[in-house]
Amino acid sequence: MTGPVIRGRSHPVRRFFTINRTVLSADDLAGDLRRTTLPGGLRVVSESLSHTAAFNLGFFVGVGSRRESRALHGASHMLEHVLFKGTPRLSAEEISASIEGVGGDLNAYTAKEHTCFYARLLAEDADRAVAVMSDMLAHSLIEPQHFSSERTVVLEEIAMGNDDPGDVAHDLSAQRLYGPSGLAKPVIGSVESIRAMDRDAVVEYWLAQYRADDIVVSASGAVDHDRLLEQLAPLDLALSRRRAPATAADEEAAAVPEPGLVVQTRDFEQLEAVMSWPGLALLDPRRAILDVLVTVLGGGMSARLFVEVREKRGLTYSIDASEIAYSDAGQVSIEWACAPERLQQIVDVVREVLDDVLAHGITANELAQAKGQIRGQTLLGLESPSAHMSRNGRTVLQDDPRTVGEMLAAVEAVTLEDVHTLTRELFSAEPTLAVVGPWDEDRQVSLG
Amino acid sequence: MTGPVIRGRSHPVRRFFTINRTVLSADDLAGDLRRTTLPGGLRVVSESLSHTAAFNLGFFVGVGSRRESRALHGASHMLEHVLFKGTPRLSAEEISASIEGVGGDLNAYTAKEHTCFYARLLAEDADRAVAVMSDMLAHSLIEPQHFSSERTVVLEEIAMGNDDPGDVAHDLSAQRLYGPSGLAKPVIGSVESIRAMDRDAVVEYWLAQYRADDIVVSASGAVDHDRLLEQLAPLDLALSRRRAPATAADEEAAAVPEPGLVVQTRDFEQLEAVMSWPGLALLDPRRAILDVLVTVLGGGMSARLFVEVREKRGLTYSIDASEIAYSDAGQVSIEWACAPERLQQIVDVVREVLDDVLAHGITANELAQAKGQIRGQTLLGLESPSAHMSRNGRTVLQDDPRTVGEMLAAVEAVTLEDVHTLTRELFSAEPTLAVVGPWDEDRQVSLG
Repeated sequence: MTGPVIRGRSHPVRRFFTINRTVLSADDLAGDLRRTTLPGGLRVVSESLSHTAAFNLGFFVGVGSRRESRALHGASHMLEHVLFKGTPRLSAEEISASIEGVGGDLNAYTAKEHTCFYARLLAEDADRAVAVMSDMLAHSLIEPQHFSSERTVVLEEIAMGNDDPGDVAHDLSAQRLYGPSGLAKPVIGSVESIRAMDRDAVVEYWLAQYRADDIVVSASGAVDHDRLLEQLAPLDLALSRRRAPATAADEEAAAVPEPGLVVQTRDFEQLEAVMSWPGLALLDPRRAILDVLVTVLGGGMSARLFVEVREKRGLTYSIDASEIAYSDAGQVSIEWACAPERLQQIVDVVREVLDDVLAHGITANELAQAKGQIRGQTLLGLESPSAHMSRNGRTVLQDDPRTVGEMLAAVEAVTLEDVHTLTRELFSAEPTLAVVGPWDEDRQVSLG
Repeated sequence: MTGPVIRGRSHPVRRFFTINRTVLSADDLAGDLRRTTLPGGLRVVSESLSHTAAFNLGFFVGVGSRRESRALHGASHMLEHVLFKGTPRLSAEEISASIEGVGGDLNAYTAKEHTCFYARLLAEDADRAVAVMSDMLAHSLIEPQHFSSERTVVLEEIAMGNDDPGDVAHDLSAQRLYGPSGLAKPVIGSVESIRAMDRDAVVEYWLAQYRADDIVVSASGAVDHDRLLEQLAPLDLALSRRRAPATAADEEAAAVPEPGLVVQTRDFEQLEAVMSWPGLALLDPRRAILDVLVTVLGGGMSARLFVEVREKRGLTYSIDASEIAYSDAGQVSIEWACAPERLQQIVDVVREVLDDVLAHGITANELAQAKGQIRGQTLLGLESPSAHMSRNGRTVLQDDPRTVGEMLAAVEAVTLEDVHTLTRELFSAEPTLAVVGPWDEDRQVSLG
């Protein structure tokens, strides 16, 4: 059915604009990258960028919800919270005030395979970020009364997530795509696991998991690598004394995707829908192809799904396609929110779009457009100094050797045939459709 | 009750860190600013910044929901949508594809007093952004079938907002703080006004409101001011032919704040609460003082409210204070989400914090901390080239003559007495408390 994104004329854009392209590459935006492994195993990567007054610092720890036992479900995230609650040298308020009082930000997040603590401040205040964050990671007190008040905070955070249709739909999707593996569980834990969580067990988990050899420190901006190494030496020493538990981790159950519809009925006005298929693992070289495919399908307002579902039919405010990748698994998703009575109609349009790509692939015009989009977005993204910190921290932790330039070259090399082959591999399977919102028991949905 | 943010020792932070402060000022981050008014009245401001490959462009139109009659409630936002739907030269897909195909972003938002269309792309593609956006603003077709499909999209957007507890609570607050003035209405309109909205009336509204003399074009990054002027000349000419309606706008009713509790019962897990007081207008010189006050109360994890409500008592995931300013009015708000049974306890703690500041003012330590925080955040914010575009566009449209350096100097000059005086002026009044979520009819809340 659907034609190319730019219809009618062959090069309408070129006729209307003056094209004045100079060649900017990823190298133009790269800084001076240095990487050192300290004696205790702490890996330090820094990228010194000129023309920024900011210092960005991140501690990437290789532990997330995936590694948790049933009793410790949510422990990685709980730890992320309680490590802000004070050390022998600094109270919780002093930790925040030391960074915020100079206009900086200090924050953290927990994912399924890693936890990250990060700060951004003026370079003139770099030393305090390194000192405070090292102190938190190695010397937190995790006092019982703080643990207990943070337990209530996390229960509030769970309630907040339950009021967010997108969060709930993504958790439902993960349960169906990754069950019964460790990737199926929500990062935050459950009301039951958080209520029952034992402070001493979390402290033990911290001592076992926050080890020098499983942490990457990444800095970017106005950075002095040698000074950073010097300042991190005590942390490296402290965390190198920690040892992984002698017993090997339990063998993890394999993911068994369970396609079909899964519904959580909630009293919202809209239905939130996430349609997913198994995707590609983090280091799979075909992710460059997947990037192109996802961009063509749902990478913005000119993408096929947006044009067909919103622009032509006005069925939803927005519809996106995206991919998520973990070390050994991934997912591709299409998501939107809509009035309940429009669900089947949108599913049918999505199905038509996918069937068209399955049968005919994408067009040469779409391929060129997607490559331009990925190149421009990547280069614009690298303008932010904090993006370098974040990318370097994650790629070093994940043993991903590819530079941005190599990734862009891989995208540039993608062919129409590559995209067609991958489309058939991923989208021939029956999807999971996770739906959250008002639901009539009699409602039937055909996934085509 | 509450002490200063940094407790116990007088300078704990200084003892733990090496302080190595050089003096960075707003001027260090400013670019080459140029401003021109074209013959038709279009104002053009550009800030050329070195060391960025990006071009940021925004069209700031001085029309928002405040100016709308009852029948046109939501027309400014509806216009923002339909101006993306095509011109004689470009279809909707071509508009999006022209910017997205080179990795750029093209988007827009509508506020109560202005509407903004903005793009960010690589400087090598600057020309196409100026061409496409000028075409949209002056020559959109707004075809009836596109208007009608966009009507459905906006109704979906209203439903999405109704599922967002924060959006609903803010709309309730505004109704109570600004009723019956034009600021009381939600920007998006109502289901009734959108369903009934007439395409021809919206086109007429567009022709009357999008005039050269009420639009500011702001560009930042890798900008060539003279080339920009040349490219904008046709837009200036086209929009200068448009004339404001001969009849003056209706006299707007004055805002009459109505304090006390207002509840919208919804089947969420948490209650969303927004407590508000009338604040300061946009150009009120006391906004520098208010900035300090809001920072001390709720500007982060070291702020009084966060420390008292979350750190010490674990009652909520987060609590913030903020201010909003319009041309002739403003509001100060404190907001949080919590389990329904904790509402009264949190209101009581907020009341205690405010009573303490009303009685004793803030501490010298808090004042210094807040100044450092505002300075650092402002300077870090200016590192983003798009922030310059956005700030320049808004300040020129609002006739705000202050530079960032002047604003920071005003903050630096704030005294303890200034803060105490303003606290008494703003917080002696009874607040409005807007609450959205599960609600038991018998529940009583005392605002102290």
